Amino acid sequence: MKIIVQKYGGSSVADADKIKGVAKRIAKKCKEKVKLVVVVSAMGKTTDNLIKLSKEVAKKIILRELDMLLTTGEQVSASLLAMALNDIGIKSKSLNAFQAEIMTTGDYTQARIKNLKTKKIKKLLEENDAIIVTGFQGITEEGEITTLGRGGSDTSAVALAAALDAKCEIYSDVAGIYTTDPRIHPQAKKIKTITYDEMLEMSSLGAKVLHSRSVEIAKKFGITIYCGSTFSDEEGSYVMKKNIEEPVVTGLSVMDNQTQVTLSNLSLDYNLVQKIFNRVAKEGLNIDMISVISNEGLNISFTIVEEKKSHVEKALSQILKDMKGFNISYHSGFTKISIVGIGMKSSSGVASKFFKSLESIPIKLVTTSEIKISCLVEEKYKDKAVKALVNTFEL
Amino acid sequence: MKIIVQKYGGSSVADADKIKGVAKRIAKKCKEKVKLVVVVSAMGKTTDNLIKLSKEVAKKIILRELDMLLTTGEQVSASLLAMALNDIGIKSKSLNAFQAEIMTTGDYTQARIKNLKTKKIKKLLEENDAIIVTGFQGITEEGEITTLGRGGSDTSAVALAAALDAKCEIYSDVAGIYTTDPRIHPQAKKIKTITYDEMLEMSSLGAKVLHSRSVEIAKKFGITIYCGSTFSDEEGSYVMKKNIEEPVVTGLSVMDNQTQVTLSNLSLDYNLVQKIFNRVAKEGLNIDMISVISNEGLNISFTIVEEKKSHVEKALSQILKDMKGFNISYHSGFTKISIVGIGMKSSSGVASKFFKSLESIPIKLVTTSEIKISCLVEEKYKDKAVKALVNTFEL
Repeated sequence: MKIIVQKYGGSSVADADKIKGVAKRIAKKCKEKVKLVVVVSAMGKTTDNLIKLSKEVAKKIILRELDMLLTTGEQVSASLLAMALNDIGIKSKSLNAFQAEIMTTGDYTQARIKNLKTKKIKKLLEENDAIIVTGFQGITEEGEITTLGRGGSDTSAVALAAALDAKCEIYSDVAGIYTTDPRIHPQAKKIKTITYDEMLEMSSLGAKVLHSRSVEIAKKFGITIYCGSTFSDEEGSYVMKKNIEEPVVTGLSVMDNQTQVTLSNLSLDYNLVQKIFNRVAKEGLNIDMISVISNEGLNISFTIVEEKKSHVEKALSQILKDMKGFNISYHSGFTKISIVGIGMKSSSGVASKFFKSLESIPIKLVTTSEIKISCLVEEKYKDKAVKALVNTFEL
Repeated sequence: MKIIVQKYGGSSVADADKIKGVAKRIAKKCKEKVKLVVVVSAMGKTTDNLIKLSKEVAKKIILRELDMLLTTGEQVSASLLAMALNDIGIKSKSLNAFQAEIMTTGDYTQARIKNLKTKKIKKLLEENDAIIVTGFQGITEEGEITTLGRGGSDTSAVALAAALDAKCEIYSDVAGIYTTDPRIHPQAKKIKTITYDEMLEMSSLGAKVLHSRSVEIAKKFGITIYCGSTFSDEEGSYVMKKNIEEPVVTGLSVMDNQTQVTLSNLSLDYNLVQKIFNRVAKEGLNIDMISVISNEGLNISFTIVEEKKSHVEKALSQILKDMKGFNISYHSGFTKISIVGIGMKSSSGVASKFFKSLESIPIKLVTTSEIKISCLVEEKYKDKAVKALVNTFEL
């Protein structure tokens, strides 16, 4: 039995007509003598609307209940897709996370898949053409409902593909992975192939193409992920072990709404650095672009998304309440721009080219990894910086 | 530990403000040193909207998938109510049917509760003030999701009360049970107490107050059901073993959109009667007011709701395709009016008073039971008939 796992995102199942369109695509695929496991996201803006509703009933949201609430979105789209499929003669059944036995940790809103029991899905595939599985969600050993975080349906799909030893195809409203966001920069080029590591840097940089945990799982199990469009047959992109093209720089990603937090003239106590980052992690705050420089005193700078500013302020003021003589500043309105490429590992001069192309732009922070360079600039310089980098690296 | 089971209907949790209102009512009750199990319906018109959506994706709806779809409605309201409660300091958790282990038969859209495991709920009640349970739904031994039929949340609540040996309170937008629908007939009187049997006749007659299965369970386990208003503290009605007042006629109920089907001059074959009703039952069509009269030939008349007319026509034309010499007619636009009262058992002359008060109105069909008389009239006579009966029986 040849199995393919397909995933359709929220915009692909946004209304009844789009669900019927997805059903037709699945029906076409089923004629190729394959069985399909189809992972679906919630319809269109359902998740956002449910979050809005939760904010209307409570000031402080209990995460367990938020997961109970949000998981209904995928159950709606999964059952509707199963109805639409049966209606056009494709035998199918929908399963939610507890039926599909997608076992996760108990970390509400950010659970990790521990284990996937495929016996039931395999048995159902013998009697059906397609099994529809609710993405984004899981269940703990105790029967608690969890979610995998925004975009988690990608991870559901890749984990199912790994467990079923199947191909994995991820469909959305964008026909593949681009050097930068094609909705903002129309000159963006489509990438034919990209390695797991490049993709990890891309998705953790806000390119918003794949849930980063899905890429980690694909890397671990060697699953090639195909990313294509729900609405066309245009060839998409492959995330795989080896980048066939291997250009020096594969892509560029842009993340707005960054706040830079700078602590300067702290006393030279490295325990303090650890304390600060521990505390911030404990609060569930994602910080980025961490730079630590010590000279006379200790200087720490990092970025957070603007909406978490008050959280971070609160956490820091508690840690630092007994300390004196230091400065702390918060500056918002920044954009993080990064270039990513596996070829950077073996190619010299990338950083130099990077800085040369940005020479007229004030850079606030820089961080680098083996395959990535990121810089922080004021939002007003964003377009200029992106244009310069796109030209320099032919993206 | 004193436990009360409360149920709030769809109009009681129709929006964020109403959910917060219900949370406040629950908080007030919790101060009386009781633990609450709260059963909720889906918010407002959610179920209707989901059904509409299902009709947009498929012509023929798979009932299994319809149940998967509809059960999301209660999970949304249950999790939101749990959030609202925790937000005002009432410790609570929501449970869906698989978490609450509400085990049912596998009859999708009309499952019956087989068994309720209360161990988990009892344990959670030790650590919480209130446990919110999704109404209307259940789960089979195989992990399939089922629903109990429209209005089934009442049944969820009464079954939970029976299993937990608790009081049962059912709240809606109407402050109790009335002699007839107060939204249509403002002169309707509230009933203080009503017996299970009277209530069964009332709810199966379209009074739309309680799901009839809930009354059956209450009768079986001797659970008194209190029906009150979510929006006021006005005293409601009790459904219980003995009717304290025991008037002759307790209530009147009205059901519109009836079609009368009449078969006349059929050959005198009683197997045929059985065959007709078997076939109609097999199609899941509810027929009512069955009258069979034989003289020269066999005459059968019964009613169905108007929207099922084409279903019934199709079923009958198949059964009768080889028969000749009979007539079949379908007349729509009728209303069924019934009076109900446990006192009718022991009181003579009720039927005579009933017919006397309707003497100027053409009656198309009459059926009676020990505690009920129903008649079918053209819709244009409805108001006149209701007025006459309300006056005669002081309803």
